[in-house]
Amino acid sequence: MTEPSRPDRPIRCFAMKVCYDGTDFHGWQRQVGYRTVQGAIEEVLARITREEIVTEASGRTDAGVHALGQVVGFRTSSRMDTNDLRRALNALLPDDVRVLEARIAPDDFHPTLDSLGKRYRYVIDNAPIGDPFRRRTCWHIRGPLDEGAMRRAGQALVGTHDFRSFETDWPNRKTSIRTIFDLTVERSGTLVIIEVEADGFLYNMVRCIAGTLAQVGHGRRLEPWVGAVLRAQARVEAGPTAPPQGLALLSVRYPWWGPEME
Amino acid sequence: MTEPSRPDRPIRCFAMKVCYDGTDFHGWQRQVGYRTVQGAIEEVLARITREEIVTEASGRTDAGVHALGQVVGFRTSSRMDTNDLRRALNALLPDDVRVLEARIAPDDFHPTLDSLGKRYRYVIDNAPIGDPFRRRTCWHIRGPLDEGAMRRAGQALVGTHDFRSFETDWPNRKTSIRTIFDLTVERSGTLVIIEVEADGFLYNMVRCIAGTLAQVGHGRRLEPWVGAVLRAQARVEAGPTAPPQGLALLSVRYPWWGPEME
Repeated sequence: MTEPSRPDRPIRCFAMKVCYDGTDFHGWQRQVGYRTVQGAIEEVLARITREEIVTEASGRTDAGVHALGQVVGFRTSSRMDTNDLRRALNALLPDDVRVLEARIAPDDFHPTLDSLGKRYRYVIDNAPIGDPFRRRTCWHIRGPLDEGAMRRAGQALVGTHDFRSFETDWPNRKTSIRTIFDLTVERSGTLVIIEVEADGFLYNMVRCIAGTLAQVGHGRRLEPWVGAVLRAQARVEAGPTAPPQGLALLSVRYPWWGPEME
Repeated sequence: MTEPSRPDRPIRCFAMKVCYDGTDFHGWQRQVGYRTVQGAIEEVLARITREEIVTEASGRTDAGVHALGQVVGFRTSSRMDTNDLRRALNALLPDDVRVLEARIAPDDFHPTLDSLGKRYRYVIDNAPIGDPFRRRTCWHIRGPLDEGAMRRAGQALVGTHDFRSFETDWPNRKTSIRTIFDLTVERSGTLVIIEVEADGFLYNMVRCIAGTLAQVGHGRRLEPWVGAVLRAQARVEAGPTAPPQGLALLSVRYPWWGPEME
């Protein structure tokens, strides 16, 4: 990551667990003229540290996508303590983004490259009438979904596969091979909750999976179809990309920090 | 309520149970140049019925205040069936307001005047770090609240009293006497949930009660103070008015329609 501007002081690497409601952000990545999570955090960090700080996240989230446990890293010569840093950020950040925790990370920490795995959640509001209070965090599907069929169908995706059928073409990747460790589909009242944990994700992968499993949930496709889509290795075979607001990055795992260690 | 424009057809009175996220509305009441719930509903009703419809609600809600079961009435000569009306409204309304149910009401129905009682909920997010996903529906109070003390203190308000200590002066009322049937304070994880049911409410009454009980929850005031505030009959004695976003109108009761009958 970028070096801070005062190399006369010892440099430390901070890692922060960050939560945000993505609705009113233009995604994670800094963009001139747009309100982004990275832009909001870097602006406040500059005020706190009086350095020009460049942050890195475990991965970008698109406009409208949320995070409950995004991990953000940066390097600074500021001598601030982790708790003071967290408090100062939360005092100055807008209230749709909060720093849940800050830690000193290993010197060579890189949130994207060091990640061992990430877990995403996709939530569908499956009530006959969409809940106004869930419209920012759910995909509303009126017709009843069979979550058991979705769960069974989704198991075809668990394991190491070429997931190009579930990747939006742009940007192209060197490889589309990823390993899904876990894929669950649960109903909680009117909500259908899909969770996917993998060593890495392709662009729009969870939203493509959610849109594909919804086809099975509707009964428009049979359970074995999902495995056939995977084997076809062609995006046109899969279901539509589900809308962004249902998606949230839950957690990121590192050798030295992750959900297992809490 | 206002008569529809086609008196040649029989006129019926409809009652609807309406849910809205009040964040992006300038309150219930129609106001030129502002986005209001009444304005949104009347605009869609005019398109559906081709009549100029005037609605009445059980009561106004302020900007930022929500409703889970607001009751809205109107008169029309439209022959539409209640289910078709609900579906047509939900198809055309913005997704932060939904019609949960529509019924034919008694001919002389008036949502404000006929109400036997209403129930409001006020929610406090009492986590050390405010949840970005709850900022639109909760009042964030960082310091730990003693919800047991709030519950006990609040019982002084149950019964028939002059509640002018809990009324924002404007608009003045003929009488400030109301009857609170039930006042509960419960903790659910990091949330502290206050519910108040009464035969009627003064302006800002629930928000004044929430702000007052929070003083007790903080330990800044002792439990008997709430009764003393009530007896003082002076607004200056009570706590601050809690912010609007924590407040939601839960339900309204009528002789022929209410939560008890469901």
